[in-house]
Amino acid sequence: MVCLMARESTPADVSPAIRLAEAVCAVIADHGLERASIREVASEAGVSIGAVQHHFRTKDDMLVFVFEHIVRATTDRVRQVPLGQSIAQNLSLVLRELLPLDATRQREARVYVAFAARAATSPRLAAVQAETLAQITGQLAEVIERAGSQGKPVSTFLLSARDEAALLLAVADGLMFDAITCPDNLDPGRLTTLLDAYLTRLLGGF
Amino acid sequence: MVCLMARESTPADVSPAIRLAEAVCAVIADHGLERASIREVASEAGVSIGAVQHHFRTKDDMLVFVFEHIVRATTDRVRQVPLGQSIAQNLSLVLRELLPLDATRQREARVYVAFAARAATSPRLAAVQAETLAQITGQLAEVIERAGSQGKPVSTFLLSARDEAALLLAVADGLMFDAITCPDNLDPGRLTTLLDAYLTRLLGGF
Repeated sequence: MVCLMARESTPADVSPAIRLAEAVCAVIADHGLERASIREVASEAGVSIGAVQHHFRTKDDMLVFVFEHIVRATTDRVRQVPLGQSIAQNLSLVLRELLPLDATRQREARVYVAFAARAATSPRLAAVQAETLAQITGQLAEVIERAGSQGKPVSTFLLSARDEAALLLAVADGLMFDAITCPDNLDPGRLTTLLDAYLTRLLGGF
Repeated sequence: MVCLMARESTPADVSPAIRLAEAVCAVIADHGLERASIREVASEAGVSIGAVQHHFRTKDDMLVFVFEHIVRATTDRVRQVPLGQSIAQNLSLVLRELLPLDATRQREARVYVAFAARAATSPRLAAVQAETLAQITGQLAEVIERAGSQGKPVSTFLLSARDEAALLLAVADGLMFDAITCPDNLDPGRLTTLLDAYLTRLLGGF
């Protein structure tokens, strides 16, 4: 239910489209993307089918809107992460926002995996996903470049900053994917241990 | 179409259920899991709806069968990988079978991501996914333990063999996930470069 709202939002701040997007999110997280029909979303949001259709002409319109909002919600959370001097620690804090470490992030991750699966066969969702990955990878590459210039043991960098960033994002996405599809295997404690071990290996410690 | 058949299979070897599973696979890879209905699969396979229902009572029965067969196909391929002395090289060859490096593996990976997304809300698929992850992680852990005992620089192992294995699988799954949802970003050459860089970092070289 809270997967799209910024923490400070109150119901009065939220537009009808965002409320509907929340309902889409809830349906997907609880029942999967297959059940996220205009009808089901109307029922979840307690509005008429016409009210949903007023905002979203097709299911794909609805899904693109929701996908973009999840990305925005995650980006907003990442912006609020308090950053310090340690680059490894900063990367860890930022990437933890992508991992299913609490109920909100679990829900977001479930929705994200469902969208990504659909992106494989939907050009419109694929375009949103491509932009999202490019943006995150670009930001990670900047941080990794800065780490190199601050005297981190760059001998551990085997690749260009851009490739190291793509590999680092793959680590976070893989942990998220394995945890969402098999939660008993990767609880929050183990997820952060594995992420931090990777960052230690990359940056030579915290 | 070929995502489930072992390389040596000829049409004569293949049971009707496997043929249907091939049709399910084709529908999911081309149109997504949402379209993989009993009706659509019957149409793809060129058989009656009753013929599909004879083998699979429900959509979930059908999906569990297909999921298990994809896992078996991948396992069979992994068993055929010619292994040599270098542990890093062996791990690379094995994990490449999980990456979307050609049309067959791209199709398998698309189907796998779609299943995994559904596993997040389907206990039966989640059980298959849990067993699959446990099996692969167990095998990777054995190889990593052997690497340690063969004088590889175990100082690079920051975690237990089981945790290193879970992290290594997350690397492969994350690369697969990012590549499938955004193919332009991670072409086959870049995928293997990133995988091998991680293995070099883990095992100190090939």
